[in-house]
Amino acid sequence: MRHFLWLIDYTKDEIKEIIDLGFQIKKETKARVFKPYLKNWQLAMIFEKSSTRTRVSFEAGINQLGGNGIFLSSRDIQLGRGEPLKDTARVISRMVDMVMIRTFGQERLEEFAKYSKVPVINGLTDLCHPVQLLADLMTMIEFERFDFENPQKTTVAYVGDGNNMAHSWAIMAGLLGFNLRIATPEGYEIDDFIKEKALEFAKISGAKIEFLHNPALAVKDADVVTTDTWVSMGQEDEKEKRIKDFQGFKVTSELMALSNNAIFLHCLPAYRGYEVSEEVFEAHAQEIFQEAENRLHAQKGLMVWLGKQQKN
Amino acid sequence: MRHFLWLIDYTKDEIKEIIDLGFQIKKETKARVFKPYLKNWQLAMIFEKSSTRTRVSFEAGINQLGGNGIFLSSRDIQLGRGEPLKDTARVISRMVDMVMIRTFGQERLEEFAKYSKVPVINGLTDLCHPVQLLADLMTMIEFERFDFENPQKTTVAYVGDGNNMAHSWAIMAGLLGFNLRIATPEGYEIDDFIKEKALEFAKISGAKIEFLHNPALAVKDADVVTTDTWVSMGQEDEKEKRIKDFQGFKVTSELMALSNNAIFLHCLPAYRGYEVSEEVFEAHAQEIFQEAENRLHAQKGLMVWLGKQQKN
Amino acid sequence: MRHFLWLIDYTKDEIKEIIDLGFQIKKETKARVFKPYLKNWQLAMIFEKSSTRTRVSFEAGINQLGGNGIFLSSRDIQLGRGEPLKDTARVISRMVDMVMIRTFGQERLEEFAKYSKVPVINGLTDLCHPVQLLADLMTMIEFERFDFENPQKTTVAYVGDGNNMAHSWAIMAGLLGFNLRIATPEGYEIDDFIKEKALEFAKISGAKIEFLHNPALAVKDADVVTTDTWVSMGQEDEKEKRIKDFQGFKVTSELMALSNNAIFLHCLPAYRGYEVSEEVFEAHAQEIFQEAENRLHAQKGLMVWLGKQQKN
Repeated sequence: MRHFLWLIDYTKDEIKEIIDLGFQIKKETKARVFKPYLKNWQLAMIFEKSSTRTRVSFEAGINQLGGNGIFLSSRDIQLGRGEPLKDTARVISRMVDMVMIRTFGQERLEEFAKYSKVPVINGLTDLCHPVQLLADLMTMIEFERFDFENPQKTTVAYVGDGNNMAHSWAIMAGLLGFNLRIATPEGYEIDDFIKEKALEFAKISGAKIEFLHNPALAVKDADVVTTDTWVSMGQEDEKEKRIKDFQGFKVTSELMALSNNAIFLHCLPAYRGYEVSEEVFEAHAQEIFQEAENRLHAQKGLMVWLGKQQKN
Repeated sequence: MRHFLWLIDYTKDEIKEIIDLGFQIKKETKARVFKPYLKNWQLAMIFEKSSTRTRVSFEAGINQLGGNGIFLSSRDIQLGRGEPLKDTARVISRMVDMVMIRTFGQERLEEFAKYSKVPVINGLTDLCHPVQLLADLMTMIEFERFDFENPQKTTVAYVGDGNNMAHSWAIMAGLLGFNLRIATPEGYEIDDFIKEKALEFAKISGAKIEFLHNPALAVKDADVVTTDTWVSMGQEDEKEKRIKDFQGFKVTSELMALSNNAIFLHCLPAYRGYEVSEEVFEAHAQEIFQEAENRLHAQKGLMVWLGKQQKN
Repeated sequence: MRHFLWLIDYTKDEIKEIIDLGFQIKKETKARVFKPYLKNWQLAMIFEKSSTRTRVSFEAGINQLGGNGIFLSSRDIQLGRGEPLKDTARVISRMVDMVMIRTFGQERLEEFAKYSKVPVINGLTDLCHPVQLLADLMTMIEFERFDFENPQKTTVAYVGDGNNMAHSWAIMAGLLGFNLRIATPEGYEIDDFIKEKALEFAKISGAKIEFLHNPALAVKDADVVTTDTWVSMGQEDEKEKRIKDFQGFKVTSELMALSNNAIFLHCLPAYRGYEVSEEVFEAHAQEIFQEAENRLHAQKGLMVWLGKQQKN
């Protein structure tokens, strides 16, 4: 049995298998062919944070695969009343076939997985957002900005906060071997452990990963430009300070002009006028919303892949 | 592709097609025959207001059609955290096949539909409640108070607030050609634009639509009497004033006695002792709860009809 | 048509039929055989209190039977806005095929059932928790602590609050004929009406039911030891007083040592250090989580059984 807790546990070949499955199922979905890959599978979806994309993509996805999603907000279950996570994990994992969790600390996810009898999927933690990266990868491939055979041809520029999205990009670049430049303000660099891990992987894959404080240097000749909100859920108190500290890190048309005709990705929700200008956002809406849709397909690929491991 | 945002966009023939489908599927449902008209369709159900009837009828309905409903309260998605509606619309409509929205302003619904790639259904706005009218029409036909061939034989009396239900009755009467008398207290008349539109349609259909301030005149010889709460969601502040202003507009047995042995309809929830007496409510419970059940069947007819347009 | 409101309405034979169905369906589930016993059945699940086990087990269960669960928290429906229960019952029961309710007073459940056109299941009230007892019975049978043919060989010790769980044990013992010792602090005895009923049933079945204030006497040579939280939902105000009053009623290893190598059951959530020690809880985790899982199977048995009555 395999969980999908973070990308660090995965190999390039496994990522490729998941992405290939995602493309295959996307093609079938577009033709309105719905094969019951996970017939009668029950997916518990636990949300300790609210969500649009994660919620709709997992619930629609598991249904399209022949299964069923059970939406559990922490408001509606005993988790919110202080039941130990390990008890909740032991109960739920005996009643369903797979669990998706959106929570705060990565350690909560790990604790749940430790006590779970069924595969657990990270639907976002404060540390990383690996399912988003699967969707981003599919989108890069569709827009011909990435190829598993020639990863070193791709340069991605991440401009903004050294948060869970930056972490996920760093590990993914390290694993797959594409080049990544992360430009954050000083004081907003990524986690040291993640950085180390990414660089360790990069030595093997040949990825060139750079950590900068200058958005223009990061974006220069990049094939993909991406960012994320400056103020994540739970950081509302620091909002004013953050907005000040992130001056100069907005993705504008001027910045995009430095790139190699890059596509622009955003995991959403986007805050126009902050991390991205309205102009850039709407000029790249096609990529952004295709990326959002790919959450649906990538996660179906992932669930089917995990289901296969389960059966082996 | 067609949306179902308000009745103004529809013709009498189209309404009849939807109602006919509703009756056909109701008959099948009663025989426990569930044809997969919308097999694997994902219906997103977005609720910015709480609901019993709309929720249960859409969720049971889409499942009985072979699809699946995804319940999204604004609490659980990013809409509640300020994501622009047009972004939410572009994301959700790429992941599902149909969207139902219960919201406040009609303009929110229109905005969503403008950016949606899939059909959008009005599940109630402050302006109108068109799916309720489909159920009401089915109920009138079942109780032999309406016939598409002879609409002018029917007179409906609406007693109460000039709100979204009154608006919907006005447009439906105009479209189909039945007679309607709306009696509201002064100051609670229906919206001018709706009134104009209804009268414009009435010129073509032959409907006689009257706007009164006297419940007895409205109900006299009517075949159908209907009302709605005096205090809609969001108007709790005005409750005291409204109750005072609506004195004399309660539907009582004395009032019903003036009618032509009318059936009584109510979209629920009902506030006994206010817009309707307990006596009238319980005497007409059979009609009222059959009307509620018809939400289920009418909406299945609507969804299947919209699905057919989609495929064309 | 039959409801499942409390055990008092049921006979030993009927309980056995439900349990037998539960075991049969559990076996099929373990073999991943999902027969559509309730194909296209819509189950409304109304929660006026939050829940993990009841929620997941009913929603996964009805789906595994070929139907669909509609989760309705009182927050999301008009019940929460003061619609009379009898109206909500009449509406919902015309749109779905079965209803499960978790609520406060037993009288709310009874009122709903009175107006419902479809079977209603008690998913927990302040008075009793009959579906939990079905799961407990299955677990006792699996661990060879109960046999329908020789009920008098079994002695169960319930240690703690004379609450809805104690009530359910008392009635079940009375109906089936096993021995039960309920040890509560003074002032926390079970309801008089339930006590009377249990003893009345016991006269027929031969059950020996004792009401004590001494945990050690209760547990001595018992085959099953069970307890429940000292502070149920809604009793948070009395927490401090209750913890004081329940001193000496914690299930510890010392207490368990007095038993006949008993299994330990807990309906969860458990509060370690209060009604049970961490040591006892984890030593008996296998029984406890198998008991939790049996909620799923027992309730499937119940729903299928109710469905059969419906068809007759």
